Amino acid sequence: MLLQILKISCEDRPGLISTISHRIAHCGANIVALHESVEQKTNTFFTRIEIEGGDNLTALEEQLRIDFQGARISFGPLKRKKIVLLGTKETHCVGDLLLRCHCGDLPADIVAVISNHSVLKDLVQRFDIPYFHVPHLEMDREEHESKVLSILSELSFDYLVLAKYMRILSENFSRRFPEQMINIHHSFLPAFIGARPYHQAHERGVKVIGATAHFVTNALDEGPIIAQRVEPVDHSCSALKMKHLGRDVERITLAHALELVLEERVFVAENKTIVFE
Amino acid sequence: MLLQILKISCEDRPGLISTISHRIAHCGANIVALHESVEQKTNTFFTRIEIEGGDNLTALEEQLRIDFQGARISFGPLKRKKIVLLGTKETHCVGDLLLRCHCGDLPADIVAVISNHSVLKDLVQRFDIPYFHVPHLEMDREEHESKVLSILSELSFDYLVLAKYMRILSENFSRRFPEQMINIHHSFLPAFIGARPYHQAHERGVKVIGATAHFVTNALDEGPIIAQRVEPVDHSCSALKMKHLGRDVERITLAHALELVLEERVFVAENKTIVFE
Amino acid sequence: MLLQILKISCEDRPGLISTISHRIAHCGANIVALHESVEQKTNTFFTRIEIEGGDNLTALEEQLRIDFQGARISFGPLKRKKIVLLGTKETHCVGDLLLRCHCGDLPADIVAVISNHSVLKDLVQRFDIPYFHVPHLEMDREEHESKVLSILSELSFDYLVLAKYMRILSENFSRRFPEQMINIHHSFLPAFIGARPYHQAHERGVKVIGATAHFVTNALDEGPIIAQRVEPVDHSCSALKMKHLGRDVERITLAHALELVLEERVFVAENKTIVFE
Amino acid sequence: MLLQILKISCEDRPGLISTISHRIAHCGANIVALHESVEQKTNTFFTRIEIEGGDNLTALEEQLRIDFQGARISFGPLKRKKIVLLGTKETHCVGDLLLRCHCGDLPADIVAVISNHSVLKDLVQRFDIPYFHVPHLEMDREEHESKVLSILSELSFDYLVLAKYMRILSENFSRRFPEQMINIHHSFLPAFIGARPYHQAHERGVKVIGATAHFVTNALDEGPIIAQRVEPVDHSCSALKMKHLGRDVERITLAHALELVLEERVFVAENKTIVFE
Repeated sequence: MLLQILKISCEDRPGLISTISHRIAHCGANIVALHESVEQKTNTFFTRIEIEGGDNLTALEEQLRIDFQGARISFGPLKRKKIVLLGTKETHCVGDLLLRCHCGDLPADIVAVISNHSVLKDLVQRFDIPYFHVPHLEMDREEHESKVLSILSELSFDYLVLAKYMRILSENFSRRFPEQMINIHHSFLPAFIGARPYHQAHERGVKVIGATAHFVTNALDEGPIIAQRVEPVDHSCSALKMKHLGRDVERITLAHALELVLEERVFVAENKTIVFE
Repeated sequence: MLLQILKISCEDRPGLISTISHRIAHCGANIVALHESVEQKTNTFFTRIEIEGGDNLTALEEQLRIDFQGARISFGPLKRKKIVLLGTKETHCVGDLLLRCHCGDLPADIVAVISNHSVLKDLVQRFDIPYFHVPHLEMDREEHESKVLSILSELSFDYLVLAKYMRILSENFSRRFPEQMINIHHSFLPAFIGARPYHQAHERGVKVIGATAHFVTNALDEGPIIAQRVEPVDHSCSALKMKHLGRDVERITLAHALELVLEERVFVAENKTIVFE
Repeated sequence: MLLQILKISCEDRPGLISTISHRIAHCGANIVALHESVEQKTNTFFTRIEIEGGDNLTALEEQLRIDFQGARISFGPLKRKKIVLLGTKETHCVGDLLLRCHCGDLPADIVAVISNHSVLKDLVQRFDIPYFHVPHLEMDREEHESKVLSILSELSFDYLVLAKYMRILSENFSRRFPEQMINIHHSFLPAFIGARPYHQAHERGVKVIGATAHFVTNALDEGPIIAQRVEPVDHSCSALKMKHLGRDVERITLAHALELVLEERVFVAENKTIVFE
Repeated sequence: MLLQILKISCEDRPGLISTISHRIAHCGANIVALHESVEQKTNTFFTRIEIEGGDNLTALEEQLRIDFQGARISFGPLKRKKIVLLGTKETHCVGDLLLRCHCGDLPADIVAVISNHSVLKDLVQRFDIPYFHVPHLEMDREEHESKVLSILSELSFDYLVLAKYMRILSENFSRRFPEQMINIHHSFLPAFIGARPYHQAHERGVKVIGATAHFVTNALDEGPIIAQRVEPVDHSCSALKMKHLGRDVERITLAHALELVLEERVFVAENKTIVFE
């Protein structure tokens, strides 16, 4: 039977679950899964509920919008999303996402891949996905971004995935896609913010390396973290070996975070995420 | 404010959360945390709810018992539990639990330690805990167990923790303490059931070892699993080294499982557990 | 500078490292990395040494073969290997290896993919790799295997990788490729040997699932283990969800094991492996 | 048979292993385990060799000191070490080390515990270990440290273990114990350097927390890292819950690092460690 996903976030107060579950029971639907959390700092309530069956779900949604005025509400069956990938030269994350979407492991269609290099073109085209090469040489950031934005304006997509896109995006760019851009950073943030994290990690002599998938905000590497994974290393790992080892952590962390987002399991609460796995 | 923990398990049907949350809202209490799960195979609904505030909680409990006849219900503030440890010769699990209970890391009081050897006596007495030495030599299993049962019959306790107790318990013994006995097995079950799991693991050449904390039932090493952890090993690990390495996995896994049980986060559903972390 | 890899296994006795390192120093080469291990049970010595520089390496190898008569010795620069994949219907392992070999993450060329189904054909051909569809219907095991063997006999390859090949291979087949066939099993062996491990794992209520990459021998799921990884699960994971979650553990474990083998870091010692990472 | 541990660090050059292993073979000893590594940046060679048997080991050591003038060499059987613990109020690390040393899990004797509070006194005295309470109130750092140093000057010890010692040590203090002081920091450094790392972690919304054991140098939280471990967390973890969860990571990481140091498996190479596990 078709599952419906109900997501609500609003100011916390007593009786919220009672009201919501009453409305759901009233229309004859069954709650298959329910997660809830309250963010103390902002007194915000978050819930994600999977519902099965029921009559007149449109009326249910309308009723909830009346009950919870001012709340953020989304309701409906889980839909396959559209994503655009931004990459540079590295193949592992872009290739991994091409493969997962192609084989049905991720519920998304890649509508385009955009890169400032041509390296990824052959791989992308093997999957019959449009490839846009937007070189950045002899161009300032604004000009390059306007070319990328111009391509994006022609595309219909839900999320923009920075799959090892090695350029810093301006505030002008990132503020256009709030809660829509997901980046993979090659360290367990907040360690090793900025450039060349594996070299920083090697220099510091750490015994674990990691990767962080996060939403992109104006502040570099400071957006809400969706998922993090780590991998042990030892003294025998050069920075280059760490980079090689890190590829698997990066690809798995990005794919995992994206799956959570695509299945509508993630809320953004200021600079954090609420993730209902 | 004092938290109340409500646990309900019953046959699943639509409207359960609506009814429960309505009753809670009605008495003015607030839901601080709610977990629920449905075991498909037996169509059983499980919920654990943390509640804050509210008037007349006794009436709430009575009402819920009327609403959910035939359900298993527990309700009340989280109480410090009493536990008895059974050990043999190894110190790491018994010592770890002595320390955690003594320092307040685990919400339990150890009322006694029982062992078929005298090795642990000095350590246990350093924490001013009664120690009962029940030797098993020149005695059959029934006779030995009857001596242990006789001691237990004089004690008041909530859980019996087999902290590396190296003797097999008879069905006669184990059926007296349903969902009350927790064992730590030194492998990631169901691998290496039975005796000398580290030797079995070494013989097989595995690359991970582990530990399993589970409720004890009649069937050896087959009870519901509460928690499992693993640790990587390599070819250079002898069986002895594995045993040494395994101590930390064992102590952490047992302590973690016990904490879950003591905080009333665990339900038993036939041969499995539902754990709301 | 070009690295040479020296691997020696022989009966253990005092002075082995002295002799080997003396020969290496004598020809002016430098030891970049040295790993050694002794398997007590069989009194066997294993070493893997990375060497840089030096004159007349051919003489060095000849000398070592005189010094260590009866030993297994391999010496030479690390070469890109040729592999054949056997698959059935699942795309994640086959796809992952296609991608890694294509992008240079694994030092191997896939010379062919053989499957008893046609599902993987489109994906494989996107990477311009020959695809052999050998249906098994209305055929006994012997007949089907003889068709696969016939294709293999036309190919030149170093390793045969069972990338979720869901058919059991006969002893007649497996004994032809000693230490050459690598399988990925979807459980942390020896737990859940045999069919449908995720269903077994779900049935047992385990809190971790895993994957095991191992060399294939005559005994089903009993060959020397190369690598194992695990992933935590909880009560909310259905067998289907476990299977989905397990894909990432499988693909990473197989790729990791294959990388170790391709870099000549693995020795087989009876039913175990020695892995020098 | 008694194992001897040989550790050498010196400038790297060809033939080192040949010379060392020749000397060992010459006196009839057998190499049981050999680890070596070269730190590229400083061109330094490190080796740790376990030796069994042999005649006239004193002559061997003398010969090696002639062969490797200017090298750091240590040679001899593994000895039980003496350690002093510095703590503040938290019991988990101090208690864990008391237990491990008492039960023989760690090859060390705790000769004293020093704290700026009296909280730990009862626990420490249960293990018959001298306890020194050195209050820091109404005293400047220099004065307090001079009192601690005065106690230390009366004690004979190999290592000083900061088992959640919550005071910053001056350069004057730390430079007296080079490569002798081991600290446990409650984050995966370099993330969350400084005070209240769990609050920082909660504020940042990370999905893993961790602990780092490191040698103490003049620079706060910047010393060579010996071991790091992490633990997953989610949005439902308050800073307080993280702190509670973090206790196990801290105690295991510190005990593990200490075991490596006590077994003489750790070299310090500028701001990094070489760890031969």
